[in-house]
Amino acid sequence: MFKISIIRRSYHLFQPNALTKETLKSHPTHDLLQTLGFVRQSQSGLVQWLPLGLRSLRKVEDIIRYRMNTDGDALEVSLSSLSPKLLWEQTGRWSNKELFKLKDAKKAEHCLTATCEEDITSLMGNFITSHKDMPVLVYQISRKYRDELRPRGGLLRGREFLMKDAYSFVSSKEEAIKMFERVNDVYDKIFGDLRIPFVSAWADSGSIGGDLSKEYHYMHESGEDTLLKCSNCGAISNVEKAESYPIKEGEYFGDVSVKYSLSADRKTLLCFYYPRNRELNWNLALEAVDHDMDSVFNMKRNEEILQIFKQENEDIMLTRVLRIMDCRLNSRSNFPDFPLNQYLKNNFGQIDDVSIVQAQENEICGSCHEGHLSGMKTIEVGHTFYLGTKYSEPLHATFVGKDNQRGIPIEMGCYGIGVSRLIGAIGELTRDDNGFKWPTSVAPYLLSLCISPHMKNEQEIISLLQCQFKGTNLSGEIMHSFSKKLGLGARIRLSHAIGIPLCLIVGPKNWPLVEIELRGALIGTDWEKEFLDLKEKYRWEIVKSTSGYVEKHIVPVEYAKDVVKILLKYLS
Amino acid sequence: MFKISIIRRSYHLFQPNALTKETLKSHPTHDLLQTLGFVRQSQSGLVQWLPLGLRSLRKVEDIIRYRMNTDGDALEVSLSSLSPKLLWEQTGRWSNKELFKLKDAKKAEHCLTATCEEDITSLMGNFITSHKDMPVLVYQISRKYRDELRPRGGLLRGREFLMKDAYSFVSSKEEAIKMFERVNDVYDKIFGDLRIPFVSAWADSGSIGGDLSKEYHYMHESGEDTLLKCSNCGAISNVEKAESYPIKEGEYFGDVSVKYSLSADRKTLLCFYYPRNRELNWNLALEAVDHDMDSVFNMKRNEEILQIFKQENEDIMLTRVLRIMDCRLNSRSNFPDFPLNQYLKNNFGQIDDVSIVQAQENEICGSCHEGHLSGMKTIEVGHTFYLGTKYSEPLHATFVGKDNQRGIPIEMGCYGIGVSRLIGAIGELTRDDNGFKWPTSVAPYLLSLCISPHMKNEQEIISLLQCQFKGTNLSGEIMHSFSKKLGLGARIRLSHAIGIPLCLIVGPKNWPLVEIELRGALIGTDWEKEFLDLKEKYRWEIVKSTSGYVEKHIVPVEYAKDVVKILLKYLS
Repeated sequence: MFKISIIRRSYHLFQPNALTKETLKSHPTHDLLQTLGFVRQSQSGLVQWLPLGLRSLRKVEDIIRYRMNTDGDALEVSLSSLSPKLLWEQTGRWSNKELFKLKDAKKAEHCLTATCEEDITSLMGNFITSHKDMPVLVYQISRKYRDELRPRGGLLRGREFLMKDAYSFVSSKEEAIKMFERVNDVYDKIFGDLRIPFVSAWADSGSIGGDLSKEYHYMHESGEDTLLKCSNCGAISNVEKAESYPIKEGEYFGDVSVKYSLSADRKTLLCFYYPRNRELNWNLALEAVDHDMDSVFNMKRNEEILQIFKQENEDIMLTRVLRIMDCRLNSRSNFPDFPLNQYLKNNFGQIDDVSIVQAQENEICGSCHEGHLSGMKTIEVGHTFYLGTKYSEPLHATFVGKDNQRGIPIEMGCYGIGVSRLIGAIGELTRDDNGFKWPTSVAPYLLSLCISPHMKNEQEIISLLQCQFKGTNLSGEIMHSFSKKLGLGARIRLSHAIGIPLCLIVGPKNWPLVEIELRGALIGTDWEKEFLDLKEKYRWEIVKSTSGYVEKHIVPVEYAKDVVKILLKYLS
Repeated sequence: MFKISIIRRSYHLFQPNALTKETLKSHPTHDLLQTLGFVRQSQSGLVQWLPLGLRSLRKVEDIIRYRMNTDGDALEVSLSSLSPKLLWEQTGRWSNKELFKLKDAKKAEHCLTATCEEDITSLMGNFITSHKDMPVLVYQISRKYRDELRPRGGLLRGREFLMKDAYSFVSSKEEAIKMFERVNDVYDKIFGDLRIPFVSAWADSGSIGGDLSKEYHYMHESGEDTLLKCSNCGAISNVEKAESYPIKEGEYFGDVSVKYSLSADRKTLLCFYYPRNRELNWNLALEAVDHDMDSVFNMKRNEEILQIFKQENEDIMLTRVLRIMDCRLNSRSNFPDFPLNQYLKNNFGQIDDVSIVQAQENEICGSCHEGHLSGMKTIEVGHTFYLGTKYSEPLHATFVGKDNQRGIPIEMGCYGIGVSRLIGAIGELTRDDNGFKWPTSVAPYLLSLCISPHMKNEQEIISLLQCQFKGTNLSGEIMHSFSKKLGLGARIRLSHAIGIPLCLIVGPKNWPLVEIELRGALIGTDWEKEFLDLKEKYRWEIVKSTSGYVEKHIVPVEYAKDVVKILLKYLS
C-alpha cells in the first residue's frame, strides 16, 4: 500500500563538489565511498550511513530476505542487541576479548551481540519441545558488534556492522546435514542474485566449532583471505582446511620445528615435526591422530604443554610418545633435541607420510592427489556452519524425541552473511578508473537524469520524465538531484562515479532527442536483436566508437522509457 | 524486483497451545503480546521480536518512511549506535544517568545512542556550509537505548526501543517555524494512516529545550500522561504547559508554599507563592517574570538558592525582592516567614493575578479564559521540538549567511516517534475481550485461512486460495499456519485473538461455499450498496444475528477473493 518513492531534492548535499581523475582511480574504496556520499566514518570502525549507501544496503537486505523467506522457508526475527552475561558464561564465551561489555544502572552485565547463538538458542529452546516442532530456520538482519583492535577498510571489518545471521534447529544429524545443504543452496541463490562471481569453499570452522563448514568468497587481489584451487578436481579450500602434498616427498633437509600436544587421556605426548619454513595446520594435525587430542593444543607454548604432561603423569615410564612426521621431512633433516630425559623406547610410536602443514601454491592437491594447487586472494562474505549441540547442550535446549526420549539436545547450524561488508567488497571488486560500477542489484539508483544547466525548463523535463516512468519499477530508482554548481559533463561523470547503471542525458543541442549512456556493459547479443527489431519504431540510434564500442543510445524523449527498460534487461 | 511473500509453514511454533477467555480478557497487553507470539521479553525492558510482531513493526515503519519521504521530503540516514563521549560532553549531556555507557578495548568511552542530536549535528555540520544548503530534513528509524530504572509495560517504556528520529537544519527562525509546521503536517498524516484517533497538544519541551513543542497522544485510561482540553476553545495541552485559572480567585485560605529563584543578574530574589496543595509550574513561573530568571531555579532546595543569593550580593541592602503571588491566594492565606533579616521595603516588588501552578481539571482555560478544562489520560507516541541553536552552537555547526556572514549557528528541530511503542500503545487501545483488534494498517496479516482439520485436502485448498490471491496486494498477507492440534473453532478464535481483520473459514459442511468473518466493523454504509449490487454476481450471502449485527459473509470459494477485497476496503 505504501510504496516508497525516494527522489529527494536535497540529496546533492552529500555529493562532492569536485572529483579528480586521481581520486576516482587511486583512493581506497572506503575513502571513495565517503567522497561520493555513501557513508561517513564517525569513529574508527564505525560509520554513519548516508542516503545513497543506505539505498544500496537495503537492496542487498531485500535480496537476502526474499531468498531466505522464499527458498529457505525461514522465519524472520529481530533480537535485542543487549545480551546478558549469564548466557555467555554458560557457553564459555564471556571471556572473548572482542565483546563490547557494559553494566546497566543495576550493575547487571551485558554484551553487545557479536553473534546470537546464545540468545537464539535460549529463545528457541522455549518454543521447541518436540521433534515435531522441527526443522526450523530463523534469521535476522541486524547490527552486530566486535571490538576489533585494528578495524580495517571501514565496511570490510568494522566494529559495528550489519549482518544476516540465521540459525537452524533440527532433531538429528541427518536432518542437520539436509538443512546445511538447504541453506547452502539458498546462499548460492543469494550470491547469484547479487550478480558478482563468487566461490564457495570448504573451510575450517575456526573457534565457532563443528565440522561441516563452508565459506563464500569474492576473488580479489586486495583480499585478506587465501583460497587454494586444484587444477585437476577443481576443489576449492581455505588454506586452513586444505591438505597438500609436496611434489616430491622427503626432500626437506633444513631445520625441523616441533609442536607438542597431548592425547585426549593426556597419557601420550604427541610430537608434530614439520619444516621450519612452514606453518603447522592444527586441523591436519588433528586428523593425523584421528582427533585423539586434548584441548591443550590451543596453548601456544611447548613448555606449558610439557609441564602439564609431567604434572599429570607421575610415572613418566608409563607414558607413551607418538611422533608425527610431516611427509616433507627425511631422516637427515635437522631435528630438535628430544624434550624428555626419561622414556622407554618401546613406548614410542611414529606416524609417517602425513601432511600437517598449511598448504601452499603449486603443491599437489590433498583431495585428488593429482592436480596442483593454485592460490587466489579473496574477501570472505558469507559462512555456513554445522554447530551440532555445542550451544544447545550448555543452554539446555532439548526436545522429546520420537520414542518419547526426553532431554535430547537440539542439533543446530548457523549461517552468516556480512551485509554491510558486501557493499564494501562489491565496491572494491567492481570499481574502475571512473569510480564505482555496481551491478544493477546493488546500484543505489538504476537511472540518473543529467540535464544540462543550459536547458531553461529543467524542472519541467524532470517532471515529464518522472511521469513517463511512473508506475514502472523504475519510478523509485531515478536520481536527478545535482548541485547547481555542476555542469552537464560533471553531472555525467558524477553519475558514472556513483555507479548508476544508466545515465539519461538531456542537452539543448539534441533536444527533444535524448542520449542514454551505460556505466556497465550489456551482456550477450540478444539486445542487438531487440535493437534491430525496434530501431524503426522507437527511432533508436546507436553511436559507436571507431573500435566498435557502443558509446551511447540516442532516442526521442517519448521513447526514452522503452529503450531504458530494454537496456536494463541486458545489463549485468 | 524482490517482492517479499511471507507464508511460513513453521510460524505456528510461536502460537499458544491453549487460550482461555480469561487470558484474552485480563492479561496485561504486554503479556498478551508474548502469549500470542508477537514478542518475547528477554530481560527487563528488552524484547526479542518474533515473526508476527516484526511484521506489524515493519508496517508501522513503512507508513512512517513513506510519509517522511513523500510529504516531508526527508532524507533517510542510519547512524551508528555507538556515540563518542566527547560529543556529549560538548553539549553537557554526558552526565545523563539514563545513558548506557561503555569503554572499548582502547579505553575510549562511548554511549549507546539514546537520541542522536549530538551525532547528527556533528555529521550534518560537515555537509552544510552555506544558507543555500538548507532547509534539510533527515531521519532514521533505528534502535535507541535508555537505561530506565523502572522499565514499564515492555513496549511502552523499554530500555531498547525502535524510534524514528528526524532532525531539521534551516538558516533562520522563520524557516525553523515553517519546518516545524511541515513536520507537524507530516505527523498528522502518519498518525492518520495508522487509523487510530490521536490528539496533538502543545507541550513543555522538558529537558531537550526550545519553546515550540508539540506532543502526539493516544487517549487511554491506562496512559501515564495527562492532557487537559478546554470545553470552549478546544485547546489541548500537556499539564506541564497548560495555564489555568480558578473559578473564583483569591479563595484559598490554607497554607502557602514558597519557592525561591534569582533574576538573570542574580541581584533580585524571586519568591513564588502558591497554595500548598498544588504544584508549582516552572514554565508558568518563568513566563510570570518574562523569563528573567537564572538557572538556579533547577535546584530543588530553597536554602541553596538563598545561600547563592547571599554569596553573590555582599551588600544585601542593594538587592531587590520580587514576590509573585498565585491568583488563588489572598492576604489572609497562611504565608511562611520571610527569609531575609535585612531588607529595604522600598526594594520590594509584587506581581499579582498570575497563575503559576499546574493546571487542574474543572478550572478555567488559560487560553480563552472562558471554557473549563477537562482531563484525559493518554499515551504519548510522538513529539516535535524546535531546538534553536542548542546543539549547533556547542558543536560548532555553522554556515555562511546571505550577506557572507560567517559562523552563524544552524537553526535545528528534532522530531520523534516511538515506533515499537506504537505497537504496544495500539495493542492496548484496540484490544477487546477476544484479544487484539489491530487496524488494517498495523495487523500482522490481513487474512487468515482457517480450514477445518476434517477437510481431507487441506493443503490443496490452501494452494487454491493462495493462487487466487496471487498478484493481488493480499498475496503476502495471508496467514494459514496453525498447529495441527487446534480444531477449526480454536483456529478461528486464535485468528481473532491475533487480531487478523479477515478470517476465511472452510469447513466440510458448506464447502465449496466459504465463510468470511470480520474481526473489526465495516465503516459507513457504502459497503451495503456494493453488496446489493454484487450479491447476485458473487452469490454473496450475509448472515445477521437477531439484533441485526453482521455475523458472517458466505460466498462460493471462486468469489472469495472478490468479496475479501470489497470488505477490506471498508474495514478501519
